[in-house]
Amino acid sequence: MMMKNKQILLAARPVGFPKAADFQLVETEAPDLKPGQFLVRSIYLSVDPYMRGRMNDRKSYADPVGLGEVMIGGVVGEVVESQHERFGVGSLVVGMFGWQEYAVSDGTEVRLVKTGSAPSSTALGVLGMPGLTAYCGFLDICKPQAGETVVVSGAAGAVGSVVGQIAKLKGCTVVGVAGSDAKVAHLTDDLGFDAALNYKSTDDYYGKLKELCPAGIDAYFDNVGGPVTDAVFGHLNRFARVAICGQISQYNATQLEQGPRLFWKLIEKQVKVEGFLVFQYANQFREAMQQLTAWVEGGQLKYRERITAGLENAPRAFFEMLQGENIGKQLVKIS
Amino acid sequence: MMMKNKQILLAARPVGFPKAADFQLVETEAPDLKPGQFLVRSIYLSVDPYMRGRMNDRKSYADPVGLGEVMIGGVVGEVVESQHERFGVGSLVVGMFGWQEYAVSDGTEVRLVKTGSAPSSTALGVLGMPGLTAYCGFLDICKPQAGETVVVSGAAGAVGSVVGQIAKLKGCTVVGVAGSDAKVAHLTDDLGFDAALNYKSTDDYYGKLKELCPAGIDAYFDNVGGPVTDAVFGHLNRFARVAICGQISQYNATQLEQGPRLFWKLIEKQVKVEGFLVFQYANQFREAMQQLTAWVEGGQLKYRERITAGLENAPRAFFEMLQGENIGKQLVKIS
Repeated sequence: MMMKNKQILLAARPVGFPKAADFQLVETEAPDLKPGQFLVRSIYLSVDPYMRGRMNDRKSYADPVGLGEVMIGGVVGEVVESQHERFGVGSLVVGMFGWQEYAVSDGTEVRLVKTGSAPSSTALGVLGMPGLTAYCGFLDICKPQAGETVVVSGAAGAVGSVVGQIAKLKGCTVVGVAGSDAKVAHLTDDLGFDAALNYKSTDDYYGKLKELCPAGIDAYFDNVGGPVTDAVFGHLNRFARVAICGQISQYNATQLEQGPRLFWKLIEKQVKVEGFLVFQYANQFREAMQQLTAWVEGGQLKYRERITAGLENAPRAFFEMLQGENIGKQLVKIS
Repeated sequence: MMMKNKQILLAARPVGFPKAADFQLVETEAPDLKPGQFLVRSIYLSVDPYMRGRMNDRKSYADPVGLGEVMIGGVVGEVVESQHERFGVGSLVVGMFGWQEYAVSDGTEVRLVKTGSAPSSTALGVLGMPGLTAYCGFLDICKPQAGETVVVSGAAGAVGSVVGQIAKLKGCTVVGVAGSDAKVAHLTDDLGFDAALNYKSTDDYYGKLKELCPAGIDAYFDNVGGPVTDAVFGHLNRFARVAICGQISQYNATQLEQGPRLFWKLIEKQVKVEGFLVFQYANQFREAMQQLTAWVEGGQLKYRERITAGLENAPRAFFEMLQGENIGKQLVKIS
């Protein structure tokens, strides 16, 4: 069966902030299946900060997307044809199917969507890679203890919003850093954060954090980097733990940004700073997913999604996510 | 018994690099002993990088030295009078007796010198705080594995020289960074480092490290900070461990120095960076000291000392240590 397949290719390597012309929408034909393969029709595509790094022609923890190749990305989809034992027609699956309507897979690194009573889209958010990132990275590196003060940057995003709520579940005082008053209100009113700081309308991050964290900061989960992180470091308590999950403030920089040298602070306060990738926790995913699902179903872990319609709008959704337009998980609805 | 006591006081808080006028040599009388006290005659005084921080009027991990107070410092001395049960006349002791000829102590945080066949001066170096700093911090944070590449900055200093030799004992490839050709020769010819880099005569730290560390860098023990550390970060391997022990390149800065923001690198390479103070390992000191002593006595752990004569020359010895004139441990011989 020949099927038309819309795809979005990486057309050019962005310099600085990416633009529409860095992508190209094409129509091809979905390839025929071979034994052991199945065809997935995309329902939701996830756009995430890490994709910006993969657009550069530089090997990082993973290879870059090649020019003219389909942009990589996590997708929830439905199996519509199958010559695969495990993934039969009608299965809801999640995998790295890319920015396209249809994908052929042999099942490698594909899993069945198991989100309980939550919608399948959550397999890309709170019950997917962002939720696992938050759960595994925060608990392993930040080691939150009841009564401690935890700060989260990018707090209204897909990862940060989960981190802050887990910190609350662990009995911590939680302060979020986010980029709009609406996000601040969401964090404190909907998600139970103790306080939040709009970094776009605050000049004195150090002073504001001092006000919001009178007992200092015991753990910091950083999605953003830059001046917010500099200010947080000024308030770290002895034996503080810092998880570096993302540095979205740096991803579009055309040269290495300069900032104050902070390592002396690590000595003075005996601080641990650890960067991580969610994959390093693969052996904890099953247990983490069970806990996250239980929390979501029990109403203790809330989530929000921002859904942009149409594959052709995926680049725009990606730009808006990089600019922080989303509250919660940014998705693209494909079909 | 009235005894004249020469002391060096902190006379002024240095701005930038300290100068002679920041210190004052005075002669007082050693106080009379009360029950439970003893009088120590200083033999060797240790001058160390951390002292620069204690001269600032700013609470760090410890209180600053007050203006007009005796400069703090570790001393090996002999008990010459005693009303103390444990520390009798003739005991060799080590403690924070300060920059002075005589000190009165009640025994708090004083220990008997037990350096085996090594001279008592080593109780301030390889078999003292610097040795413990190297042993505990390096093994706990850097977790060296045989076959890995370890880089040490400040490698010819009291701490760095011990770190590099322990790394060799653990089967690592060891590259030192130091500030003179004589130091480089000492590291490679006397201490068994695989290679060393004179950062004062090298322009391209990144390129030189690439040459000396073709398999990348698995662990970094940093005493220095600044551009050397920036270059090291460019070569860190996946799951590298970085111990931040000192940042001597920053201690005389009058404002926070700027440097490239490096935290994205921690994510990409899943790196852990940890600052520490030796005191956090107090419960390991006994075992560490036994091992260090055995290595020194067995000739596997070598050390060098630079000894400046006369209490009145302690400020100069301190300046020269900050400038890197010493190879190995910088001491001042008092009597």
